[in-house]
Amino acid sequence: MDVISVIRAKRDREELSDAQIDWVIDAYTRGTVADEQMSALAMAILLNGMNRREIARWTAAMIASGERMDFSSLSRPTADKHSTGGVGDKITLPLAPLVAACGAAVPQLSGRGLGHTGGTLDKLESIPGWRALLSNEEMLSVLDGVGSVICAAGDGLAPADKKLYALRDVTGTVEAIPLIASSIMSKKIAEGTGSLVLDVKVGTGAFMKTLDDARELAATMVGLGTDSGVRTVALLTDMSTPLGLTAGNALEVRESVEVLAGGGPADVVELTIALAREMLDAAGLRDADPEKALADGSAMDAWRRMIAAQGGDPDAALPVARERHVVTAPASGVLTRLDAYGVGVAAWRLGAGRARKEDPVQAGAGVELHAKPGDRVAEGAPLMTLHTDTPERFEYALESLTGAYDIGTGEGFAPSPIVLERVS
Amino acid sequence: MDVISVIRAKRDREELSDAQIDWVIDAYTRGTVADEQMSALAMAILLNGMNRREIARWTAAMIASGERMDFSSLSRPTADKHSTGGVGDKITLPLAPLVAACGAAVPQLSGRGLGHTGGTLDKLESIPGWRALLSNEEMLSVLDGVGSVICAAGDGLAPADKKLYALRDVTGTVEAIPLIASSIMSKKIAEGTGSLVLDVKVGTGAFMKTLDDARELAATMVGLGTDSGVRTVALLTDMSTPLGLTAGNALEVRESVEVLAGGGPADVVELTIALAREMLDAAGLRDADPEKALADGSAMDAWRRMIAAQGGDPDAALPVARERHVVTAPASGVLTRLDAYGVGVAAWRLGAGRARKEDPVQAGAGVELHAKPGDRVAEGAPLMTLHTDTPERFEYALESLTGAYDIGTGEGFAPSPIVLERVS
Repeated sequence: MDVISVIRAKRDREELSDAQIDWVIDAYTRGTVADEQMSALAMAILLNGMNRREIARWTAAMIASGERMDFSSLSRPTADKHSTGGVGDKITLPLAPLVAACGAAVPQLSGRGLGHTGGTLDKLESIPGWRALLSNEEMLSVLDGVGSVICAAGDGLAPADKKLYALRDVTGTVEAIPLIASSIMSKKIAEGTGSLVLDVKVGTGAFMKTLDDARELAATMVGLGTDSGVRTVALLTDMSTPLGLTAGNALEVRESVEVLAGGGPADVVELTIALAREMLDAAGLRDADPEKALADGSAMDAWRRMIAAQGGDPDAALPVARERHVVTAPASGVLTRLDAYGVGVAAWRLGAGRARKEDPVQAGAGVELHAKPGDRVAEGAPLMTLHTDTPERFEYALESLTGAYDIGTGEGFAPSPIVLERVS
Repeated sequence: MDVISVIRAKRDREELSDAQIDWVIDAYTRGTVADEQMSALAMAILLNGMNRREIARWTAAMIASGERMDFSSLSRPTADKHSTGGVGDKITLPLAPLVAACGAAVPQLSGRGLGHTGGTLDKLESIPGWRALLSNEEMLSVLDGVGSVICAAGDGLAPADKKLYALRDVTGTVEAIPLIASSIMSKKIAEGTGSLVLDVKVGTGAFMKTLDDARELAATMVGLGTDSGVRTVALLTDMSTPLGLTAGNALEVRESVEVLAGGGPADVVELTIALAREMLDAAGLRDADPEKALADGSAMDAWRRMIAAQGGDPDAALPVARERHVVTAPASGVLTRLDAYGVGVAAWRLGAGRARKEDPVQAGAGVELHAKPGDRVAEGAPLMTLHTDTPERFEYALESLTGAYDIGTGEGFAPSPIVLERVS
């Protein structure tokens, strides 16, 4: 087997054999296949695609590159959830303890933000004392005791994916559906969950800009999960406008706690409940009642125990940014559009996100919205507030908001539903 | 400017701007753009193409990455020739001194063989004492004194191309017409020749397997040369069967000397004369008579002086391989097909070529043909003789000849012309 023949095959639109896929993933993990060879192959895959069998084998080879976890010692059924990432997407924070409160075990091996979408771990790290890094034993112990855990994925799961993802990030080969699907699913399958709900975001603030692309990605991942014995379902959800009223680390934690307290923005509550129902169904807990668990405080209780189990103080005051800048409405009327990408970039530029992996994030930075599409606004009234510790960034952040919203008469305006489609 | 936006642009079928091309070639030469980023871009170019403007700018940027040579001090007009490479393609050896004998200055900056096609420098190094490596001053002195020189290209010409070619070789991105054309033409334009004749090979033994691909490559290169003020013309020539009766280093030198002595195989003589006429026309020497220069010994005289000027002994005995194996005709009839690729691989496996850049070659190894397509053969009579110093390679070489030739009644057989088309 040699790498050039594998690259040529995909370049020339041939199907890769199982042996070719196994060999190339293993050789890349061991360093026999060089980065410049794998990036050429990744570009050929991005442009020429892979069929279902190839994607399944590619995923299996990435799983085989590392260790597998085992949740079979837990007394509860496991229910995992993965979001493809969006602006203001804090859903994991209320969702994991909510589903735990309903009887499932929810392992959330999460990541950090890169680019305009925030990372779940960055958000939780704004809680004083909270630790993202747990050993496998600690993770299982929190999961067994509380019912949910949100922590960093260990290095042992799918190391081939870790190496390949870092390479794709610097070679313009991120946006390939076969590679996105196998990257997500290799980690989820290796982790050993019994069921999985995928939140596939669609719109300007998401990787997938069109419903067709999102459908293809969702169907690919559902197929991979199902074929591996994981009960998998996907919701395609709207990411044309930010979720909720906040984008930023501590800002999103605060909003999540509001939801757990029975309040919070309607769209965040709706999506949290919709995903909770799917997770509970997939885990076989069809009688569970997530609305009740929110209302009666049992979800909030699970949240407090989960944060405390990882060293955090659920009662501590959250960090607040040193400076604020209010953006006012330039006219009176109805807010008919508020672009997720523009708001995401603004939050990122204010310090909520990072440009390079090694950069720190500001806990208090971000964007707070005072209106959402469909809301009536008055000229001069606050539209959003920008938060940062570094006010010299306001101008740069404001640039990304130019043209990011429209105010009109509201005639003909129809709000987008949050859940667009279900794929199973 | 950042490299990911350049890669994404070509990936998404956009046209690269002049600024993007200049920046990426310069940054790659300096090492700011990494190999894994350039290989992803090369694959995107291979699959999505570049238009004429992009190829011209890419070529100009590669020329600008290094030094330019200057032949203006020579009293004769310069005429250069480049072949895209084939099996048994020893044409440079008789052609350069022949055209020199007719009054042009012929600089041949040549390469070594890699894969199944031999390298001109490897062939000449089978002549005892001959040196491929000359300083720029030595090169100009031989060119001025003899009229022709065949030597290794210096490191100063188009270093971006040198780096990119080595990368393409290991990443499955060699076969991209825009990259092949810019690679060849950047060196030729930087070298400073006034005219250039391209021998674009078509067929199983060539990079270009189809006439359409060869036409596109030829037209691209002729356009690049013409736009840069180099009088450029291309001949598309047949490479479905080996040129002449030999493939191998010393074997091909011997055949070249036969041509210079007024003999040699008809196809080698025909192509040598056709290319000589094109080179002499392009150099403005329309009254020159290459057939006369072959017949009256003046081409042979230029050859002997050229070899001697580079330390070689034109009268020395050429190396002979230690072992031979004769392949006999399995039936009587007409040889209707003799595949260039199969013979090229056999010669390579016998030791005439190298698998890695650092491997040595055997001077005496190769394949000697006793029949060409159209010739009548008798069962049991010699069809070809394999030469090697390492007889354990016979079996491996014979494998590549399985199915490489057909013997039939000869009914309906029509020999391919050597020169298929002319592009100017």
